[in-house]
Amino acid sequence: MAERDPLPSWNAGPTRAAILDFAARVTDEAHADFLPPAERVAVFGHDGTLWCEYPVPMQVLFTRERLAQIASRHAALRQREPFKAFLDSELPQVDAMGLRALLQLGFVTYAGLTLEDFTRRAAAWVATARHPSLHRAVAACAYQPQLELMAFLRARGFAVFIVTCGSVDFVRAFAPAAYGVAPSQVIGSSVKTQVDLQGGQASVVTLSEMQSWNDRETKVRNLGLHVGVRPVFAFGNADGDLAMLRYTLAGAGPRLALLLHHDDEQREFAYDGDFFFSPLDEALQHAGALGIRVVSMRRDWATVFPEAPS
Amino acid sequence: MAERDPLPSWNAGPTRAAILDFAARVTDEAHADFLPPAERVAVFGHDGTLWCEYPVPMQVLFTRERLAQIASRHAALRQREPFKAFLDSELPQVDAMGLRALLQLGFVTYAGLTLEDFTRRAAAWVATARHPSLHRAVAACAYQPQLELMAFLRARGFAVFIVTCGSVDFVRAFAPAAYGVAPSQVIGSSVKTQVDLQGGQASVVTLSEMQSWNDRETKVRNLGLHVGVRPVFAFGNADGDLAMLRYTLAGAGPRLALLLHHDDEQREFAYDGDFFFSPLDEALQHAGALGIRVVSMRRDWATVFPEAPS
Repeated sequence: MAERDPLPSWNAGPTRAAILDFAARVTDEAHADFLPPAERVAVFGHDGTLWCEYPVPMQVLFTRERLAQIASRHAALRQREPFKAFLDSELPQVDAMGLRALLQLGFVTYAGLTLEDFTRRAAAWVATARHPSLHRAVAACAYQPQLELMAFLRARGFAVFIVTCGSVDFVRAFAPAAYGVAPSQVIGSSVKTQVDLQGGQASVVTLSEMQSWNDRETKVRNLGLHVGVRPVFAFGNADGDLAMLRYTLAGAGPRLALLLHHDDEQREFAYDGDFFFSPLDEALQHAGALGIRVVSMRRDWATVFPEAPS
Repeated sequence: MAERDPLPSWNAGPTRAAILDFAARVTDEAHADFLPPAERVAVFGHDGTLWCEYPVPMQVLFTRERLAQIASRHAALRQREPFKAFLDSELPQVDAMGLRALLQLGFVTYAGLTLEDFTRRAAAWVATARHPSLHRAVAACAYQPQLELMAFLRARGFAVFIVTCGSVDFVRAFAPAAYGVAPSQVIGSSVKTQVDLQGGQASVVTLSEMQSWNDRETKVRNLGLHVGVRPVFAFGNADGDLAMLRYTLAGAGPRLALLLHHDDEQREFAYDGDFFFSPLDEALQHAGALGIRVVSMRRDWATVFPEAPS
């Protein structure tokens, strides 16, 4: 009996062939590229690699909803920047706000919450929110080919990590349900915390101070801190992932690094160079020279989103 | 056919009964205390909880060996404190040195190494070094009852983490072989790092600056950062573990927190209150009132170390 195709949403072609070939080599004990399971570490970016990040990262919409709730009780917020601009538009113009203002919004909206409380709120939002233009639930904006690829790698003994520039606590809230990835296998941006007694019980509570902005080389340093082993497989989509892809390729032995190109206006978006978080210029320009394989959403993916968008 | 005893090195008694009862409840879908596997998170301290830490933590001996190598090429180190005191005695007097001097030694001996290079050196040391008085290899100084307990928990769907005040990179170097714990499931003290090009290849390289001293409440904050889920089972041995044990007990639902009491002069050591890193006074004094179960090495463990000390 023929094995069921493990990657039905990936079109035949060089990208799919490279993935299948890599997995076959590292799991074949007779092959020179065989890797023991402990060395099979795969890392994926999140926004724009595992789910849609356009026109704004989902976490911006989550933050806006929470800020609107807070502003309904504290009207003064509605009159002050950066809150006013953020609340005045259905679709916050994050490009114009800049990173510092965005972080300030994050601090205001989440500081003082316990880890458990934040997780509950984030999971509830992801379970009910909708994408602003794709006519589907946020939870259905994960990319079907990537869900298949993560399952494919896990079935071959890989430990799969998500390495996101988004808040680690936000992505952890839904990573188990959405991707089958345990919270401890999500690495992300983080704020400082303290151990606080709320109701007499010790909890981890967020503070209004950045701890780690998990982008570019910091992704590599945080891989050192959280994983402790250099990955052999990496998949990103933006300039912020370039350091992680290069770090992955720099080790000895078999390596595969992939870069998702958003070139599919029909089914998702085509946004080269026009995105605040992901200009995607440096990475795309240098991918070939660096040995990074560019994945075309348009050509390489038979399906983009899961069926039944609901 | 009767199931083989999963904890043969644990004597019958209330401690063993509490462990078996806890595991039975949280894995029984018909029980009110049932926990889905995602919530089965267990954490263990390392030095003094999983392996012997007396008369000095093993990492101090590892550091001494590396410092001696460096001093053999840089004779001036032998004349300067804190290096001189550290090198002059076979068994470094860490109590007298103080923490700051110890950290300085760590920085001198490890700064500038790549993660891969450090890991190789640590693994090689653990594989060959011997304990200064127990007449056994360092690698055979893990506690047999704890090896059984970790395997017991994993077989019941628990994710098992090590939360050590030691260097995260040191413990990760041997955690897979010694404990069956993946590097990413070790949380520990860490220094800052940078991404450095060595031989043209990007690597994570250690710097001479502390990032996180993973003790007391920092263990709790780092559980938030690395695991993202409050544990339901915690096992420690020292005052530095108390915050983690209390954090574990503070959640809703079934909880078990254990504190190992080193009261076994015959087979290991009895060192209440005379140990730089682990005065073990506050934790022992308050364990009962806090709902932490004290484990007596002398009474509760049928065996302390694995057989065939070699």
